[in-house]
Amino acid sequence: MSQTKESPVEDLTSTRLPSKGYAAMATSGNLVPWNFTRRNPRPHDVLVDIKYCGICHTDIHFVRNDFGMSVYPLVPGHEIVGVVTAVGDAVIKFKTGDTVGIGCLVDSCRECDNCKQDLEQYCLNGATYTYSIPERHGDGITYGGYSNQIVCDEDFVLKVDGSLPQEKVAPLLCAGITTYSPLRNWDIGAGHKVAILGLGGLGHMGVKFAAAMGAEVTVLSTSPEKEADAMELGAHKFVFTKDEEQVKNVQGYFDFILDTVAAEHDYNFYLSMLKTKGTMVCVGLPNTPAQVPVASLVFFGRSLAGSLIGGIAETQKMLDFCAANNITADIELINIKDVNEAFERIEQKDVKYRFVIDMATL
Amino acid sequence: MSQTKESPVEDLTSTRLPSKGYAAMATSGNLVPWNFTRRNPRPHDVLVDIKYCGICHTDIHFVRNDFGMSVYPLVPGHEIVGVVTAVGDAVIKFKTGDTVGIGCLVDSCRECDNCKQDLEQYCLNGATYTYSIPERHGDGITYGGYSNQIVCDEDFVLKVDGSLPQEKVAPLLCAGITTYSPLRNWDIGAGHKVAILGLGGLGHMGVKFAAAMGAEVTVLSTSPEKEADAMELGAHKFVFTKDEEQVKNVQGYFDFILDTVAAEHDYNFYLSMLKTKGTMVCVGLPNTPAQVPVASLVFFGRSLAGSLIGGIAETQKMLDFCAANNITADIELINIKDVNEAFERIEQKDVKYRFVIDMATL
Repeated sequence: MSQTKESPVEDLTSTRLPSKGYAAMATSGNLVPWNFTRRNPRPHDVLVDIKYCGICHTDIHFVRNDFGMSVYPLVPGHEIVGVVTAVGDAVIKFKTGDTVGIGCLVDSCRECDNCKQDLEQYCLNGATYTYSIPERHGDGITYGGYSNQIVCDEDFVLKVDGSLPQEKVAPLLCAGITTYSPLRNWDIGAGHKVAILGLGGLGHMGVKFAAAMGAEVTVLSTSPEKEADAMELGAHKFVFTKDEEQVKNVQGYFDFILDTVAAEHDYNFYLSMLKTKGTMVCVGLPNTPAQVPVASLVFFGRSLAGSLIGGIAETQKMLDFCAANNITADIELINIKDVNEAFERIEQKDVKYRFVIDMATL
Repeated sequence: MSQTKESPVEDLTSTRLPSKGYAAMATSGNLVPWNFTRRNPRPHDVLVDIKYCGICHTDIHFVRNDFGMSVYPLVPGHEIVGVVTAVGDAVIKFKTGDTVGIGCLVDSCRECDNCKQDLEQYCLNGATYTYSIPERHGDGITYGGYSNQIVCDEDFVLKVDGSLPQEKVAPLLCAGITTYSPLRNWDIGAGHKVAILGLGGLGHMGVKFAAAMGAEVTVLSTSPEKEADAMELGAHKFVFTKDEEQVKNVQGYFDFILDTVAAEHDYNFYLSMLKTKGTMVCVGLPNTPAQVPVASLVFFGRSLAGSLIGGIAETQKMLDFCAANNITADIELINIKDVNEAFERIEQKDVKYRFVIDMATL
């Protein structure tokens, strides 16, 4: 594992596919151009020419090794849209020229109880994430979408409808499915009062989905200046959560709260806004445990739950839902040379709502 | 409010019904015999001659004012079984001679969204609990079942099947419904792996219900000597939670954990035993907040929920289920003179599994 910013020579055989991209070479490093190799497509593999890749906050966490599991050099990116340029002999779902997406998962065991239920994200033998994790068949480490191309088993490739702008589809592969899945799992629809906590990359998708599903949508935010944006995204109400009167008005109000906040926050403050039998689902990952007064759950029959992205079949349903309802992410398209600046701006929350790399600039 | 152990004279009108029972006269006091009055039955009221009353740990909390809401003199008891001795003119559901039960609720607003959905326990205008709370129509304070008789609106009275021993039915009115309701709400049945955490008054009912519903039932306990009892109650497995090997074997194992523990405990230790998308439901009320690492919820799609007793319709269903499946509580029948000793023994966890007062001893 290299500790310098120079590109190391890959020690895998010459039968691999020469590729290029941007990589973090070590914990402290910025992203730099890097030439590397990917596995040659196997019979069930699809080769995808990457057109766009969204920048997820998780990419930054992995580049910085915040979760202690990064493998360097590390090519981030799991919000990938591209075009199929080659298919293996056994591929049946895709052909050359198809527009496709690849999200957070590129493989799983396919045999465990969860995989059999289309819950590959919870694979009991460990899902193969799109970057920084060993490939399943001894083919080295996975490399993500900040790159010119990617090789992926067809079962983990998604069909993308040609009618939507591809660059705005890319963030659906992570931010989209992460918010769509819990809303669907808790059967959110007309008649439900839904709150979206946090209006970033995840939250802005949550607003769009919940509104499209027919719910009354309220954005909860500590930033009153976000109200106009929230309404423009499709929210029906906005609660500035530092205003006592506004908070009082939503005590016991919501059927469902989608909590997209990754920073430490007061769970009970938001639980108190749930109706009897309401549910708050967390998709962010604060470093400190949630402090949950059990009485707040018991006396109102409330639930606090978690949800992780979504399985492949559900991700396809989400993309189809987006095509049917004309839903895409609000993005800022960037040159890959500006990726390090984009990371800084994300950390300063200076993005509406997702950066997407135009891979033509590589 | 009296601060002595002498019985105060009630200041309500002489049209009320002279009654007798045992009451706590102040925070620090034991229970002592006390003569008091109840409201005269109204047209929709039923007068019940109390035969048996279970002792719930909540009774002790209220006697000691642990929740800061006790009103003295306080007659505890909300696990009541008795016989109807008079009915108001408008009563249609009951007649003199019927065996009936009264649980934790004696009234509610009946108009709010929750009451309309048969969730009177979550009444948005405040349910009227069986003791130590103002009656709804200015008739003073409610007095519980440690008493010779009780007056209750027929809508909050339950039918008790004559085939079951009445003294063993009494604890079903609180311990029974508190455990039955979450098992039913999460559709527990054949094919589910259920854990019951804590084997006291609540837990022993949880074991019986979950087994009768067809689930595989495991008791989780810090007391290895409880294994034989657990099996006798109907559990299929027992996990001594201080044995690392046994704990390792149930990581990600359960669909559902019913947490009956009211003392502080490590929620994440038990959450780790839940399968993907599993749920842990709390019915106990520790004084300190649960510490919940959000990652434990997110990476496994788990939920932590709360549940409070059950509504009247569901309580009737529970009693009917008990009659159909020959389910009652395991009890120790006591003379009311021994009630203070019983309180002490409950606090020392020295009861299998519920004390029930034989009201003939009053």
